[in-house]
Amino acid sequence: MQYYLNGFKPGDPDDHRSNADLSTHKSEALPEQVDVLIVGCGPAGLLLAAQLARFPDICTRIVDQKTGPLEMGQADGVSGRSLEIFQALGFSERVLKEAYFLEAITFWASNGDKPEEIVRRSKKIDGRGAFSEFPHVVLNQARVHQFLLDRMAQSPAQLSPHYGHRLIEMKIDESGENPYPVEATLERDGQSERQRIAARYVVGCDGARSTVRQKLGLELRGDSANKAWGVMDLLVVSDFPDIRIKSIIQSDVEGALLIIPREGGHLVRLYVEMDKLKESERVASLNITIENLIAAARRILHPYTLDVREVVWWSVYEIGQRVCESFANRPTTVTDNRWPNVFIVGDACHTHSPKAGQGMNVSMHDSFNLGWKLASVIRGRIIPDVLSSYEAERRAIARELIDFDRELSTMFSVQNDDTHDATQLEKYMIKHDGYVSGTQTRYSPSLIVAESDCQELAEGFRIGTRLDACPVVRLTDARPLHLRHALEADGRWRIIGFGDAAHPESGNSGLIRFVEYLQNHADSPIRRYTGEEEDIDAVIELLAVFQQDFRDVDITSLPDLLWPAKGIYGLRDHSKVFCPDLHRGVDIYDVKGIDREKGCAVVVRPDQHVAGVWGLDGLVEMGEFFAGFMVER
Amino acid sequence: MQYYLNGFKPGDPDDHRSNADLSTHKSEALPEQVDVLIVGCGPAGLLLAAQLARFPDICTRIVDQKTGPLEMGQADGVSGRSLEIFQALGFSERVLKEAYFLEAITFWASNGDKPEEIVRRSKKIDGRGAFSEFPHVVLNQARVHQFLLDRMAQSPAQLSPHYGHRLIEMKIDESGENPYPVEATLERDGQSERQRIAARYVVGCDGARSTVRQKLGLELRGDSANKAWGVMDLLVVSDFPDIRIKSIIQSDVEGALLIIPREGGHLVRLYVEMDKLKESERVASLNITIENLIAAARRILHPYTLDVREVVWWSVYEIGQRVCESFANRPTTVTDNRWPNVFIVGDACHTHSPKAGQGMNVSMHDSFNLGWKLASVIRGRIIPDVLSSYEAERRAIARELIDFDRELSTMFSVQNDDTHDATQLEKYMIKHDGYVSGTQTRYSPSLIVAESDCQELAEGFRIGTRLDACPVVRLTDARPLHLRHALEADGRWRIIGFGDAAHPESGNSGLIRFVEYLQNHADSPIRRYTGEEEDIDAVIELLAVFQQDFRDVDITSLPDLLWPAKGIYGLRDHSKVFCPDLHRGVDIYDVKGIDREKGCAVVVRPDQHVAGVWGLDGLVEMGEFFAGFMVER
Repeated sequence: MQYYLNGFKPGDPDDHRSNADLSTHKSEALPEQVDVLIVGCGPAGLLLAAQLARFPDICTRIVDQKTGPLEMGQADGVSGRSLEIFQALGFSERVLKEAYFLEAITFWASNGDKPEEIVRRSKKIDGRGAFSEFPHVVLNQARVHQFLLDRMAQSPAQLSPHYGHRLIEMKIDESGENPYPVEATLERDGQSERQRIAARYVVGCDGARSTVRQKLGLELRGDSANKAWGVMDLLVVSDFPDIRIKSIIQSDVEGALLIIPREGGHLVRLYVEMDKLKESERVASLNITIENLIAAARRILHPYTLDVREVVWWSVYEIGQRVCESFANRPTTVTDNRWPNVFIVGDACHTHSPKAGQGMNVSMHDSFNLGWKLASVIRGRIIPDVLSSYEAERRAIARELIDFDRELSTMFSVQNDDTHDATQLEKYMIKHDGYVSGTQTRYSPSLIVAESDCQELAEGFRIGTRLDACPVVRLTDARPLHLRHALEADGRWRIIGFGDAAHPESGNSGLIRFVEYLQNHADSPIRRYTGEEEDIDAVIELLAVFQQDFRDVDITSLPDLLWPAKGIYGLRDHSKVFCPDLHRGVDIYDVKGIDREKGCAVVVRPDQHVAGVWGLDGLVEMGEFFAGFMVER
Repeated sequence: MQYYLNGFKPGDPDDHRSNADLSTHKSEALPEQVDVLIVGCGPAGLLLAAQLARFPDICTRIVDQKTGPLEMGQADGVSGRSLEIFQALGFSERVLKEAYFLEAITFWASNGDKPEEIVRRSKKIDGRGAFSEFPHVVLNQARVHQFLLDRMAQSPAQLSPHYGHRLIEMKIDESGENPYPVEATLERDGQSERQRIAARYVVGCDGARSTVRQKLGLELRGDSANKAWGVMDLLVVSDFPDIRIKSIIQSDVEGALLIIPREGGHLVRLYVEMDKLKESERVASLNITIENLIAAARRILHPYTLDVREVVWWSVYEIGQRVCESFANRPTTVTDNRWPNVFIVGDACHTHSPKAGQGMNVSMHDSFNLGWKLASVIRGRIIPDVLSSYEAERRAIARELIDFDRELSTMFSVQNDDTHDATQLEKYMIKHDGYVSGTQTRYSPSLIVAESDCQELAEGFRIGTRLDACPVVRLTDARPLHLRHALEADGRWRIIGFGDAAHPESGNSGLIRFVEYLQNHADSPIRRYTGEEEDIDAVIELLAVFQQDFRDVDITSLPDLLWPAKGIYGLRDHSKVFCPDLHRGVDIYDVKGIDREKGCAVVVRPDQHVAGVWGLDGLVEMGEFFAGFMVER
């Protein structure tokens, strides 16, 4: 956290409200024109709103047909990557404080001799811990919503949802001449009069039955469901020894059960395999009751007991892996000079089973991909063509998710035939730990991911993936932190320069020459895309990592751009230069395979994905990359 | 965090308000009778209030003559031990999120050749990090107050201060027959009528000029001040390379300067040595201005610049090490069957320079010592004689602090004579890193610290000191945590059983026999001091640490007392048993020197100090220890 830049203010430094800016945003009524209208207050919609709320110059509104915030039920898995995003938004510690940590996993199967009884086959450390600096945790979706709502409310744009508003109609003016081309008609609870809002952009975060998707004439395509599962959040007493560990139980006789312990030490979620459905049968017609679900869970758990003391929430769902043909209203090619202005996000464009705990996560990652692009286009920082990359990047992820879920769901269900191998699911899950952690997403080359041939200069920062975590210390105060944690979700690009072997004060440092070019040269992307009136790091922030110890470099010997004067007082920013954490024995050059002789430059997008790696002499190429999508001031 | 024990509740699980209990506490007016009246809303008063607010059956009130909460200035150092206490109160993560981490330290002195210029003599990792799982941090006292106020407000007793109330008079009824023997008279801002409150206990947390102390006829004794220091919180631009590291600068020519960087990346605190005062001179008569202070700091920093952009707060103080003859109103001997009912805490009983950043910390530690004792006596859990131990334990600490500060202050000031050795201060500070971290406090044997001869069974948990941190994993979910973090500040005692070599399921485990005694025997202290209607862990909580891996022990094979049924539903508590964190290569048996053959029992006080170590066959002796101060149900 950084604050007091423009003067000391008493009170909570994490409350970023600034009343002066926001007079037009305070009205309870919806305005007639907005920059972004978000439909739906699920994880995707709230995460998008939380990102946009950072910009008081963007008029964002978020509506939901529900009458108020979610209180219980629904998703609960929060992956390492989602926590990384929460860290970038400033509230990961709140999730970590409350959540259940998924540290271990057990697999149970029918006892060979007594197939009606289950026995533990294995109990091990969950493998996902290796892929992120954060654990995979479990927390009520409602709490995640609240943290996002708090973040929105405490942001400069001071956003809060308009509940009880239902989208009725949506029209798009395709003339290209209307700056607010999407007209949305909303119906408000208890009011007969409808309201029309003109929006630059509309984002449908309104779930599997998305109205926005329907208004675009798009539909989900894929497998129809043929398997029903029940889900329950319970307070129980049980002598099942692993009731507080994620457990996968496959009884040959009674079917499958998935146990997900929950936050607070007592709550537990059970997923129970129900009978196979006939092809055309719908879940609703089954008349499954909570008593049926509990009875099924008990049969599967035999010989262990399950004494239910309170049912907090329950539901029945069908497995179905479906994905939408398109994630936006425009062709995805950038050549026709048109770009989308209506998007769908999360469950509105892909549905799947909750088995791998991916639903809330992938939806939020969709939003995290879209948020900075929307904000940057609206603020005139990047060309609108970049908006097409949302569909290109996220549809590939949705397809991967659907494939993964189809395979996993098949293996979950117990096959009562010779093909059933009790270890198959376990092997499959371990193989996909990285995928499930959400950290392995890799975007393909595009306008905003470079076709670089310098990857070998920084092997550990793979182009297209999110910047992997690695501990460093800050030069000016020896503060240990993960390098990525210096990258807030504030819409800025980062250039991270890694020093070559020469000491920065030697007069022979390639990184210092690199910094001086960015500081002084007319072609410097930092100079080209930053306004005269702005802080020099407002659009592209330069960070540096040296291979020398923090004791061996003085910040005052470095070019100004590495400790720039900012704000009304011209106070120096001392937080941009890092060194290996030698005190704790971690050298980022070793861990991430940085070329010690040559150094390099790693360019990171506002969503923390590596856009490219260049040599310290690759300034022209790096400049061309930025020129492909950024708007000159 | 644990919650949902008595049913799922939507909303923030860390908001512990329960409106039903608290109707009598909601009135704005002060009641006529209270259990505890706290005078003063500094760190000592608020920390005491935050502890007592946990108990809705205790009527606590806290008053302050100021009109509202502190906004800036005053203390800023938060030691590792203070963060440990904040962890036990449930808000350490809020401090860590905002604070500056004191990771390094530099020493500067006059350049031998050019004594009017300073040069860096050394720059190193601050040694205090080795003594606590938390760093030593720096944060505005006002933020610490706010966290404590939030904790108070979100606690079952829903406490908030009564500002604008000044203590005018205090009388003590010494008859021994009055259950509310202390009568306090308060004057309220803008009101002519005075209010009388009858209290069981009054605690003066009202600072160096304490009214409570004066009313007791006590005074601070010690050195008169003969040295003035100026302190300023500034926003500056400087080319001093260590402006973001704690720096101690001793210029032979211009005097001493201490730089303490502050939270948020820009703020900095400077302590400047002023000219020597004449014996009788008071600071107020010096007419020192902020301009004087800045000019002095600039002279000392030469050849580096100091360009002040904003003065946030400043003050001038004299060094004086003083301690009060008594910390309460009664003799400290327990033999006369009388106990104190008025206490003084923090600056009210000891004053010293702010050099070592001890003021706020030691004051809070005073309160943390007193809080559980007051709560336990009022709730009828322990005999009132224990209250005398507050003075016995904390006066020894105050004397240590005074001695330390006197020596440190002398070394800080530059001696312009041959005795000055520039490395003397550095050596002294490094030697006392453990002391300054606040973790080395050791209470002497008393009613509540046993004279045990079994220390060798757990060398790393020294009797009288606070339980040292060590990573373990929880048996039931493999959650990694520090063992001490399982010990909330909730007034409960803990018995931590460490397993002997035998596997708990072997039928030959000494620890299992130990647990079964505590569970079943009529002499079990857990049974003797816990009411029939209470959860079995309400007074003394039993925890267990086994030396086996978490995969090799099933919770369901252990005695009920290690996973007891609790609350209205009888849900099992799965959070009481721990194993070594072998996955991360940390074995608590090795780290803390636990006897692997014999195991042992470590008894921990509600303030986390080790009260005693016994063998697993020492149940009778352990029972006698508890019998010395606990009240049978």
